[in-house]
Amino acid sequence: MYDFADGAREMSDLLGGKGAGLAEMTRVLEPGTVPAGFTITTEACIEFLRAGAQPEGLDAEVDAALARLESSVGRELGDPANPLLVSVRSGARASMPGMMDTVLNLGLNEASVEGLAARTGNPRFAWDCYRRLHQMFGGVVRGVPAGLFEALLAQAKRARGLRSDAELSTNELHALVVRFRELIEEVSGNPLPERPRDQVGEAIRAVFESWNNPRAIEYRRLEHIPDDWGTAVTVQQMVFGNTGPDSGSGVAFSRDEITGGPTPRGDVLFNAQGEDVVSGVRNTDSLEDLAERLPEAHRGLLEALHRLERHYRDMQDVEFTIEDGRLYLLQTRSAKRPAQAAVRFARDAVDEGMLTESDALRTIPADSLETMLHPRFDPAVEYEVLARGVPASPGAAKGSIAFSATEARARADRGEDVILVRPFTAADDVAGFHAARGILTSEGGRASHAALVARAMGRPCVSGAEALEINPDCRRIEINGRTLTEGQSIAIDGSAGTVTLDDVPFVEPSRSEELEAVLGWADDVRRLRVRANADTAHDAKRALEFGAEGIGLCRTEHMFFGEDRDHLVRDVFVAAERWRRERGGDGGSDEGAGEDAASPEGKFHAALEELKTIQRGDFEAILEAMAGHPVTVRLLDPPLHEFLSVHHHERELAAAEEAGADPAEVRELRDRLAVARSLTEANPMLGTRGARLGILYPPLFEMQVAALIEAAGAVRRHGGEPAVEIMLPLIAYEGELAELRALVDRVAAETADAAGAPVPYLVGTMVELPRACLVAGRLAHSSDFFSFGTNDLTQTAIGLSRDDVEGRFLGVYADRDIVDRSPFETIDVAGVGELVALGAERGLKTNPALKLGVCGEHGGDPTSIEFFDRLGLDYVSCSPTRIPVARLAAAQAALARDEVAG
Amino acid sequence: MYDFADGAREMSDLLGGKGAGLAEMTRVLEPGTVPAGFTITTEACIEFLRAGAQPEGLDAEVDAALARLESSVGRELGDPANPLLVSVRSGARASMPGMMDTVLNLGLNEASVEGLAARTGNPRFAWDCYRRLHQMFGGVVRGVPAGLFEALLAQAKRARGLRSDAELSTNELHALVVRFRELIEEVSGNPLPERPRDQVGEAIRAVFESWNNPRAIEYRRLEHIPDDWGTAVTVQQMVFGNTGPDSGSGVAFSRDEITGGPTPRGDVLFNAQGEDVVSGVRNTDSLEDLAERLPEAHRGLLEALHRLERHYRDMQDVEFTIEDGRLYLLQTRSAKRPAQAAVRFARDAVDEGMLTESDALRTIPADSLETMLHPRFDPAVEYEVLARGVPASPGAAKGSIAFSATEARARADRGEDVILVRPFTAADDVAGFHAARGILTSEGGRASHAALVARAMGRPCVSGAEALEINPDCRRIEINGRTLTEGQSIAIDGSAGTVTLDDVPFVEPSRSEELEAVLGWADDVRRLRVRANADTAHDAKRALEFGAEGIGLCRTEHMFFGEDRDHLVRDVFVAAERWRRERGGDGGSDEGAGEDAASPEGKFHAALEELKTIQRGDFEAILEAMAGHPVTVRLLDPPLHEFLSVHHHERELAAAEEAGADPAEVRELRDRLAVARSLTEANPMLGTRGARLGILYPPLFEMQVAALIEAAGAVRRHGGEPAVEIMLPLIAYEGELAELRALVDRVAAETADAAGAPVPYLVGTMVELPRACLVAGRLAHSSDFFSFGTNDLTQTAIGLSRDDVEGRFLGVYADRDIVDRSPFETIDVAGVGELVALGAERGLKTNPALKLGVCGEHGGDPTSIEFFDRLGLDYVSCSPTRIPVARLAAAQAALARDEVAG
Repeated sequence: MYDFADGAREMSDLLGGKGAGLAEMTRVLEPGTVPAGFTITTEACIEFLRAGAQPEGLDAEVDAALARLESSVGRELGDPANPLLVSVRSGARASMPGMMDTVLNLGLNEASVEGLAARTGNPRFAWDCYRRLHQMFGGVVRGVPAGLFEALLAQAKRARGLRSDAELSTNELHALVVRFRELIEEVSGNPLPERPRDQVGEAIRAVFESWNNPRAIEYRRLEHIPDDWGTAVTVQQMVFGNTGPDSGSGVAFSRDEITGGPTPRGDVLFNAQGEDVVSGVRNTDSLEDLAERLPEAHRGLLEALHRLERHYRDMQDVEFTIEDGRLYLLQTRSAKRPAQAAVRFARDAVDEGMLTESDALRTIPADSLETMLHPRFDPAVEYEVLARGVPASPGAAKGSIAFSATEARARADRGEDVILVRPFTAADDVAGFHAARGILTSEGGRASHAALVARAMGRPCVSGAEALEINPDCRRIEINGRTLTEGQSIAIDGSAGTVTLDDVPFVEPSRSEELEAVLGWADDVRRLRVRANADTAHDAKRALEFGAEGIGLCRTEHMFFGEDRDHLVRDVFVAAERWRRERGGDGGSDEGAGEDAASPEGKFHAALEELKTIQRGDFEAILEAMAGHPVTVRLLDPPLHEFLSVHHHERELAAAEEAGADPAEVRELRDRLAVARSLTEANPMLGTRGARLGILYPPLFEMQVAALIEAAGAVRRHGGEPAVEIMLPLIAYEGELAELRALVDRVAAETADAAGAPVPYLVGTMVELPRACLVAGRLAHSSDFFSFGTNDLTQTAIGLSRDDVEGRFLGVYADRDIVDRSPFETIDVAGVGELVALGAERGLKTNPALKLGVCGEHGGDPTSIEFFDRLGLDYVSCSPTRIPVARLAAAQAALARDEVAG
Repeated sequence: MYDFADGAREMSDLLGGKGAGLAEMTRVLEPGTVPAGFTITTEACIEFLRAGAQPEGLDAEVDAALARLESSVGRELGDPANPLLVSVRSGARASMPGMMDTVLNLGLNEASVEGLAARTGNPRFAWDCYRRLHQMFGGVVRGVPAGLFEALLAQAKRARGLRSDAELSTNELHALVVRFRELIEEVSGNPLPERPRDQVGEAIRAVFESWNNPRAIEYRRLEHIPDDWGTAVTVQQMVFGNTGPDSGSGVAFSRDEITGGPTPRGDVLFNAQGEDVVSGVRNTDSLEDLAERLPEAHRGLLEALHRLERHYRDMQDVEFTIEDGRLYLLQTRSAKRPAQAAVRFARDAVDEGMLTESDALRTIPADSLETMLHPRFDPAVEYEVLARGVPASPGAAKGSIAFSATEARARADRGEDVILVRPFTAADDVAGFHAARGILTSEGGRASHAALVARAMGRPCVSGAEALEINPDCRRIEINGRTLTEGQSIAIDGSAGTVTLDDVPFVEPSRSEELEAVLGWADDVRRLRVRANADTAHDAKRALEFGAEGIGLCRTEHMFFGEDRDHLVRDVFVAAERWRRERGGDGGSDEGAGEDAASPEGKFHAALEELKTIQRGDFEAILEAMAGHPVTVRLLDPPLHEFLSVHHHERELAAAEEAGADPAEVRELRDRLAVARSLTEANPMLGTRGARLGILYPPLFEMQVAALIEAAGAVRRHGGEPAVEIMLPLIAYEGELAELRALVDRVAAETADAAGAPVPYLVGTMVELPRACLVAGRLAHSSDFFSFGTNDLTQTAIGLSRDDVEGRFLGVYADRDIVDRSPFETIDVAGVGELVALGAERGLKTNPALKLGVCGEHGGDPTSIEFFDRLGLDYVSCSPTRIPVARLAAAQAALARDEVAG
């Protein structure tokens, strides 16, 4: 048992978070600012729960502590003239808000209630306190159902035609106390004890026991809090903000909690208790009002805020009460703050000499930075939330509803802002992502196709807005009996996950100089390099602005989407498959094959040439944009059938037949449909993709390599220094790597000969299959780098299809505590993480010069980044707007590592 | 350089396989039985190839060896009266048939050809030898294109109107030699050397060089033969089987090569050379004919066969030549033999005291045993092969073509034998497997759905018969312009992979007492236990007959297929999904939910009760059949949508609409279709399956556990001792296992209470995801056993969908040497194997009592079994007809391990 004056913040294991904080504040602030009290340790609780009885000597210790409290306050419990009132509160090591019990106003009895009335000159106040004591003691300590008290209260008000508790007179409160007293006796056998010491003793036991109430047990299970920690119990002098006009309660921040600016801000309610501030029933006053009405208390508050901030070296959020002009502080904690405030505070704290740069970096929640880079709904404006979903890709967007990619594109072409609305999305819809301002789905979570593609393209997205019944065939959305139709205006905030029909204003992002400063420190500290996943010159430029040190993943297939490219891409893949069949399926080298223009070979090459021109242009633009930073280009990855939608070909054929098209054309369309059908796979994730495409259809990869090397040559001729890294996806076997590396080297050499001078390039492996991690030692021989594709590695290692599964049961799994976070958001350390660790270790063993990176979504997740930093990887790659997050997270990871090492 | 008499079979590194074999035969057989000769070592070849020139001293050594050869034969090279003729042949350590060069008849020149004619009294023979020498020497040594000789030969025959070489007269051969001589000189600058020693020297160099011809290099690459082994060169006296009626050539086996019976068998061609026997142009005579015509040679041959078999302690296959009544042996090797011959030989060899049981076990190719347990096409009967495919599931079957499961069932119900013919199969078709005698597909390999299910059910299957264009919609098969239609008779041999329209007779399998004896020895030797994958009492009984020691995998979902069950199963799963939605998706425990019969809850439970009755009956039958052996029952594994075909529901709805059904019924069907659609997954392999079903729809698993425990209780009441093992599929997380294990224990306890006495059971984890292997240490805490599901583990570890990929590119991968075998047939040791090893090691570390088994297809593959034995697993489980294979393979693995350890 520790009086507040004897404790300290380091003692939270013993005193709980609340007890330790009160002790610390007591030591830091002017004497008397914190209402006096003491804390019974968690050890006593544990002993109590183990033995099922009060630990020996505890009563005597409580007696002594209460005596010290009485003498320090100068009042006595139950004193009929000037009684001391105390609270008894729970407080575990970890915050468990609202899970355990609290009893206020202990110390009142038939005599002292009159004393309190006399001392305050406010009998109504005194009797209201006494009424509340009965209610809390009865409920918490004696287990009287709360509803029974509420019923009596309601009955009393009804009898008088009153609407609020505040209208009850002193006499009516007196009468209620009598009824409450009878109720407690009736239910529990005894009334509220007359002796204050007995009240306190019973309350302490009740708080001990509340550690094991069902909701506390459930909360601990969810939050992974051990059952054997126990709770501390704090006994503290009561102070009252509702004793008159010179009293009040409030909360205050040591700085502006929205902007992070240096002026403290807060809310005060005069003549009110703390609950009233929190419940928001009355409008609050500002600290300026406080300065005017109670300048002394205001001065004291500012002084305390300043001291606490300096002491804790972090922005603080305090609860205070003013009783008859005198200021009391009841709690302080680090202030929750939005990204811009966190950044501003960090910069200012360093300027003020309060924090080192490293310490300042630790105060910013890395994940929050992304919101600074996107517009959001103005938080100051009220709007009607139509539906809530998953904040799947940050940013706000407005536009008219479009139910298909085709419609979205058509309307975007006419200059409209469009929101693409689908139950869920698939490869077919990607062209619509380009056209739309934002994406809204009713299914899928943060790792759904919609979310992934939207984030990769920097489009705001709300996914899994389950309340919406989206029916694209009928072009309608049903929600709570309302119907929305195509073309109607809608707005989404992908940072908040909200959807509205209101014309809500947006707050535009500001790239502040504070942010630049903070990220500059992060760059000094971090070891991990940060690259971007970017597929276009536009994204590449944006990534550079955000501080990317290169491109870690350029998905070449994303270049295949676009208004004018779809048809060409379909031609290429139909031709590729026909060519393969003609060759008897082994897709061997080209030598000696007849190549007249009408043969499958000739058609394939002609189509490839067209596509090559486009790819070369795209590559050139990206390499130009990246100005000498490395650019990792992944050769074609997705299954062919993603480009050859059966549905599309069915419609095309049906249309031609209906229009009575030329029989040759119909035959051709029928054959194309057959090709598309034959490429359909039961499990495309595990099908003919990535390296497998390169082995089956070498000319596809040859075209891509030639286009890239030619583009690099062109950039160099314009004076650039392109740094090309070619990545081979979905490698499982050394033999695949050997064959494709040979293909790359051969085509690069041929292309360089044509261009006049060799272009330097690296060749690496995308490690995204468990087998690749296990045989990494062999793969490393022929790899200049590994890039861990943790998205697919997660899918294969855990056997989870991101598209199918996240919406259907990852939520259930999280509810049941089977997983704590989606493995698609934060790397699954025990499974996927170990595979990455094995792959890295084995790769480096055979090739110590191997560069190691990550290009899955996890590359932008702070927890995962800490893991990758510890593994010693060289870089992470993430979507452009996550780059500031990754830079900061990498710095925090390095600091955490130093701390452990130090 | 070693004369045959100085070498031995252990020296094959130096002498090549052929040289070592000739040396061994020389030592073992009567002097003079092997034509004399010597072998130049592989070392000389390596030196020659490295230096690009004849190693120093080689010429002198060859001179000396030739001199010894001349003296031992009693003839001299080039002797105009009685010339020695020799062959120069290649021979590497490993067999590389036909890849390198050989030159025969060296030693002939203008003078000695006359000597040969005089000695043999057969000028035509002598000139034909000389003609052949020119042709081979010119082609092999001098690089004259073979076509040029062929053209001259053809011209000579045309000029005379002859049809075969044999009709050419001595004079015509003489004239041809002149033309050949000119051709060689014209192309290479020099004619055939006159000096026989020069002929031999040039031939030796040519054979050295042939090590590096392109086809040899390619062959080595495919067979993983190192390039630096080099070839040995054997120089041997020529003998001739074509010198007259007392001459001949043939092949012979030391025992009956078909049955393994004790009587030697063979084929002889009188007055012919070895090539003529192999080419099969003339009908051969038997050893009985030989005994009649040349009794001395016949006696010598039998004696030699007996000696060689005793010496090599294995059944032998020899090549022999008889020159003018005198027997020569030119080669001996272990005889290839079908399973029944291998088994018979093994048993007899032990009886005869030639082999120990262990050694006898090693002589049987384990993989071949399976063919003994199935009917096959009679190998003695000729039939027209309509198409060839993959021998996907052994056994032969005849029946009429059915293109759908529905049709197959309807016709089978009428008593017809049916062959189910599909391009490929899926879950929808499984009911048709039950009804059909056999399955034929045009796509997919040994690991396709069709193959796996057919093997599991013991139905013969030919898959991937690519020549067939199967069009189930039109109910036709097109092949080479022929059309087959529904109902037409067809026969397949799933052991051979052949398809025919002929009414070919079958050979029925014989479970010989020899096989029982051999498997008995295997049981004494092996450490691995062998269980069966079996889903019905019928399969269980079969498995026991084959020697299964339990069931390692009983797939409960296979019990859901059957004529009368489909509709019920669909009801259950529609009800399950509706129930889940009603509960808000978390599928929590049942308490307090209202359960009136019309609610989703009520309907779900009613449907489950019906299904439970069926499952309980099935379980009881299996447990009875297994008579106390352990039975591992896997709870429901496949994705729900496998039971809720969208296609089926579309048809059902369309039919109802067309028939003008009751609107309520149409609404219900429409809603069912919507449920089926909503459960469709992009990648069902990685979707809502296995443990995930148990978490989302606990009543499904509860029903299965209750049915199983009740069945076990019933079996016990009848005096049985059921050994129940409950297996949880697709576990990735400890939390899943904990939750489902608790479910199993709870339901088992409840059920036991009802039944009066607890039923003992084990609970285990099916380890089939990479993550499960990595966290095996944690899973082992709550597992009594692990069963490695290596099929799905292969799919996830390598990222290969068995259904999609095998047909499409595993063949290409094998051709390109990226994989050597399908990872679905033989465990991929470097990837999947390491995961199994990790899982086993980590599991045992936390739970040393953990039982470890394998229930993937690999459990029946000898190479994989050897790997599992080395890992120390406890058992493998495989389809019933693979059990003898597994018993023998497990014994061979144990013997191999002992050998390494010894």
